[in-house]
Amino acid sequence: MKRSCHHEQALETPVITRRKLLTGAGKLAAGAVLATAGGFSLASTATARSTYPWPHKTIDPQKAGDIAYENWYKDFCCYATVSGILVPLQESVGEPYASLPLEAFRFGHGGTVGWGTLCGTLLGASIAASFVAGRDGEKIANDVIAWYTTTDLPVYAPASPKAAIKNTNRSDSPLCHVSVSKWMEKEGVEFFTPQRKDRCARLAADVAMKTSVLLNEWAAGTYKPVHGSQAKTHNRPAQNNCDGCHG
Amino acid sequence: MKRSCHHEQALETPVITRRKLLTGAGKLAAGAVLATAGGFSLASTATARSTYPWPHKTIDPQKAGDIAYENWYKDFCCYATVSGILVPLQESVGEPYASLPLEAFRFGHGGTVGWGTLCGTLLGASIAASFVAGRDGEKIANDVIAWYTTTDLPVYAPASPKAAIKNTNRSDSPLCHVSVSKWMEKEGVEFFTPQRKDRCARLAADVAMKTSVLLNEWAAGTYKPVHGSQAKTHNRPAQNNCDGCHG
Repeated sequence: MKRSCHHEQALETPVITRRKLLTGAGKLAAGAVLATAGGFSLASTATARSTYPWPHKTIDPQKAGDIAYENWYKDFCCYATVSGILVPLQESVGEPYASLPLEAFRFGHGGTVGWGTLCGTLLGASIAASFVAGRDGEKIANDVIAWYTTTDLPVYAPASPKAAIKNTNRSDSPLCHVSVSKWMEKEGVEFFTPQRKDRCARLAADVAMKTSVLLNEWAAGTYKPVHGSQAKTHNRPAQNNCDGCHG
Repeated sequence: MKRSCHHEQALETPVITRRKLLTGAGKLAAGAVLATAGGFSLASTATARSTYPWPHKTIDPQKAGDIAYENWYKDFCCYATVSGILVPLQESVGEPYASLPLEAFRFGHGGTVGWGTLCGTLLGASIAASFVAGRDGEKIANDVIAWYTTTDLPVYAPASPKAAIKNTNRSDSPLCHVSVSKWMEKEGVEFFTPQRKDRCARLAADVAMKTSVLLNEWAAGTYKPVHGSQAKTHNRPAQNNCDGCHG
């Protein structure tokens, strides 16, 4: 990757004054820059934490979806979705998003390393929403999960599909195992097939797009949470398809 | 919080040479420091990403457990576990851990905002293991989840328990809903009770301790993954208690 002009200037500058550090700080807090220049971490910790949640700039939902679809084929569903939402912010906002290694969220594939629990697209959405919107990110995650369980998916149409698929389905569950099993039965395919992979890649795009729309509304002050508390409704953490296991 | 001496020195130093920046860089890559000093993000992105996974130093499992137990009462299970493992590294390693806002992982409570999916302690463990061990973190997460589902928990004994509990239980499932429901039935308590809260806080400690032990073994080169692939075993993402829903 081509390094930025500013970076090259820094490499060629033998003496950097504090003023230059401060005026060159850009979007970073001055304290964080000075702390980093001092090579010590605790002060910058305090500064970094004080900036949480991280800044929002409008995310193009289509771009988020396109990144998510393509990135599914790099590192699967959770990475795909979190990168669909956060790569645009790495580009438009820069730090602190830019230093977050999004590969760290690859583990969410298959409902977390294949255990079939929370759909990795929903985990990626929850992670991204939390970095951007803090505690309000939990409301957004809650709404995205509720929407996922009650919507026929996927609906994203790739410009260049890597496989053709015929069916959408309503999962009634946030669980990877339930969601993908229902779709596979309807489509008539097994798990390790190009069709199933493309279904999950398209789903990542749908979830990245939905989450980006809600984050944009949140930043604009127009977001209204719609889904209630699962734990209060059921008097314990639970999904809503009780009969799926207890019926 | 008391700022570090190094930070104060930086604040009082009017001229910072490139050499001082480099020699003061500590564990940060020199490129990242210069890029930050230049106030530009793209170069530091590339540098930060190249350092992933992040450095490991030996984690005291007891300390990890104690932090997790106490932090459950701050922001619940996922935050408790991820902070139990990563706060020691924020202190011993510093950056890049120090700038990661661990509060961003609060959303994992109740199997992600109360939906009862992946136990938040296991989500916190998976996140932490990935930052520390990269792709190997997935093997560690897989082993921690397998251990969790087959072990009578909790076994952590708080120095100053916030509630007394009588029972341990084997969940046979990584799902919050299944795990906590089985324990509540055995203990004879409801979800919104001091006993259930302390059970989950102790569980966070257990998972933080187990994960820390495996991460230490991994760094020492003695870690051997023991649990196989769930998706390959079941030909789709799945847990192992099939009869729990399909019986």
